[in-house]
Amino acid sequence: MCNNHKNLMARVLSVPSAKAPFEKTTIERRELEPNDILIDIKYTGICHSDIHNAFGEWGGGIFPMVPGHEIAGIVAAVGTEVTKFAVGDRVGVGCFVDSCGECEYCLKGEEQFCTKGVINTYNSIDFDGNPTYGGYSQKIVVKEGFVVRIPDALDLDVAAPLLCAGITTYSPLKNWNVGPGTRVAIVGMGGLGHVAIQFAHAMGAEVTVLSRSINKESEAFSIGADHYFATSDPVTFTELTGRFDLILNTVSANLDVNAYLSLLRVDGTLVNVGAPAEPDQYHVFSLIMGRRSIAGSLVGGIRETQEMLDFAAENGIVPKIEVIGADDVDEAYQRVLRSDVRYRFVIDIATL
Amino acid sequence: MCNNHKNLMARVLSVPSAKAPFEKTTIERRELEPNDILIDIKYTGICHSDIHNAFGEWGGGIFPMVPGHEIAGIVAAVGTEVTKFAVGDRVGVGCFVDSCGECEYCLKGEEQFCTKGVINTYNSIDFDGNPTYGGYSQKIVVKEGFVVRIPDALDLDVAAPLLCAGITTYSPLKNWNVGPGTRVAIVGMGGLGHVAIQFAHAMGAEVTVLSRSINKESEAFSIGADHYFATSDPVTFTELTGRFDLILNTVSANLDVNAYLSLLRVDGTLVNVGAPAEPDQYHVFSLIMGRRSIAGSLVGGIRETQEMLDFAAENGIVPKIEVIGADDVDEAYQRVLRSDVRYRFVIDIATL
Repeated sequence: MCNNHKNLMARVLSVPSAKAPFEKTTIERRELEPNDILIDIKYTGICHSDIHNAFGEWGGGIFPMVPGHEIAGIVAAVGTEVTKFAVGDRVGVGCFVDSCGECEYCLKGEEQFCTKGVINTYNSIDFDGNPTYGGYSQKIVVKEGFVVRIPDALDLDVAAPLLCAGITTYSPLKNWNVGPGTRVAIVGMGGLGHVAIQFAHAMGAEVTVLSRSINKESEAFSIGADHYFATSDPVTFTELTGRFDLILNTVSANLDVNAYLSLLRVDGTLVNVGAPAEPDQYHVFSLIMGRRSIAGSLVGGIRETQEMLDFAAENGIVPKIEVIGADDVDEAYQRVLRSDVRYRFVIDIATL
Repeated sequence: MCNNHKNLMARVLSVPSAKAPFEKTTIERRELEPNDILIDIKYTGICHSDIHNAFGEWGGGIFPMVPGHEIAGIVAAVGTEVTKFAVGDRVGVGCFVDSCGECEYCLKGEEQFCTKGVINTYNSIDFDGNPTYGGYSQKIVVKEGFVVRIPDALDLDVAAPLLCAGITTYSPLKNWNVGPGTRVAIVGMGGLGHVAIQFAHAMGAEVTVLSRSINKESEAFSIGADHYFATSDPVTFTELTGRFDLILNTVSANLDVNAYLSLLRVDGTLVNVGAPAEPDQYHVFSLIMGRRSIAGSLVGGIRETQEMLDFAAENGIVPKIEVIGADDVDEAYQRVLRSDVRYRFVIDIATL
């Protein structure tokens, strides 16, 4: 043990109540349990779900709230029984920091589906009864089983968004067996979509981007897209009928589901990783006539998150980010809501 | 060739216009092409889709219409190049009678997904430009590639409903890998549902019936159900949360999709084989939180239809039917609409 109380104090960006501006305050992280790791956070990505939570839009928000679940940093201390990490290691933390460890999904390494519910990195009540506080913070204490290693080939700032945006898109591409010969469409070219394009391309798929306008076309081609169509052009939906094995929808708005289903081949699947607040509608005929499916996918387990980081490092997959200071987060939220970011904000925690 | 014009005349039950009562009229079937088979029809099942079509509810109805796509009979004549069947063989015809034969789906034996569109057994325009007329008829001429063999162990009257209700439920159970260890729910215990129970049970699955009331419980157990729950009882939906690998929905009414999705395990699928006229609604969260899917399935190909008949014969799967005369079809339609049949009407074509 090489920590003391002083080491456990952390400056944070905290939201005192739903939709309030951020304040700089201080929290104290827990004493290290034998399996805990203390991480000096270097960079934290801003996920759209941070905004939903900080604005209280998903209900049940625990305030004050310290958002952030795209965390990259350096191990500063380890508990007495930690075996996988040492001080100085480059590490990451994603969307959750604990789970029951005993249910069939935890045992399979798919902790995100823990039957007792995972403990989210922030805005959760931990097993000890305390609220969890996330990565808009200088430090965090996490059980080693929920920490992943960031390969040397990935800079910490670009690694941060992979901990949520990366695994959220990598996991469904793997689960639905994307590879050479697969035709994949990525709906939306934002924080998630621009990473999904890179993953699908690296997996060997033929990648088509479906974005509202043609504004991002040249950038899409530069990161691996083979085709690019504007969904604002109705011709897109006639030209691409029956084309795709998989459509990965990274947009959280309500879509014309039947129109997108018509773009699928027989046995094709429309996978959603963003959830609009209002229900979606579909006609059963759109599914029956091609044995098509509508599905959803939720981040990925710890083992798969490590696999994703290693895959990103090996294949040169790099999120495009805009690094901001701690004072810029309120404005960054507004810019995310206007889709005015290419493509992910990352907070430089040294500015906190 | 052992046919002549006289042999090709067939008495039929025909609907002159949408929702009109049936009339007995006569049609002439086409001269046998080299690959054609002339079938003396013995029994034809009444499918709910016959009613939708005869009532003009699905649009584009071709009148006069002779419905019927659950056809069982005896080969009466064969074309000069027919190799698979001989006069006297016991045969069946299902939902379609031709397809392009060249597209990837036809080549895979999944003719139902023919990219040029299958020719339905009735209410279609055949490749020769003539409307197709179905099984409410003494005779039908069909290409041998679209005829299946009815095993000796299956009586012709009970075999008839297998040609649509059977393959419609067998195909998704096979496609989603139902077998020992699988927990399957069958929604609705009607013409399709009561066959689905028998198939899922014979495949080794644990079968739960979800029916509006408990009225059919003892009969469900007698045909292979392991559990039975009334969906009118809200407790059903709390008690069965997260239980099923597959839910096969045989009901054509709009369901509370989110409630049914909550009954699925992680990676579970809700498969629809009936299509309500109005769209269904779901919340994407219901899919994401368990990587669940909503899907549809459409009958099955000819090869799989033969496999299904053989499986039914080997496993003693027998639709429960009420045999009626040709004069009873209008009344039978009304009884189907009132769910007043256990579980399938079959027309004795000898009464025509």
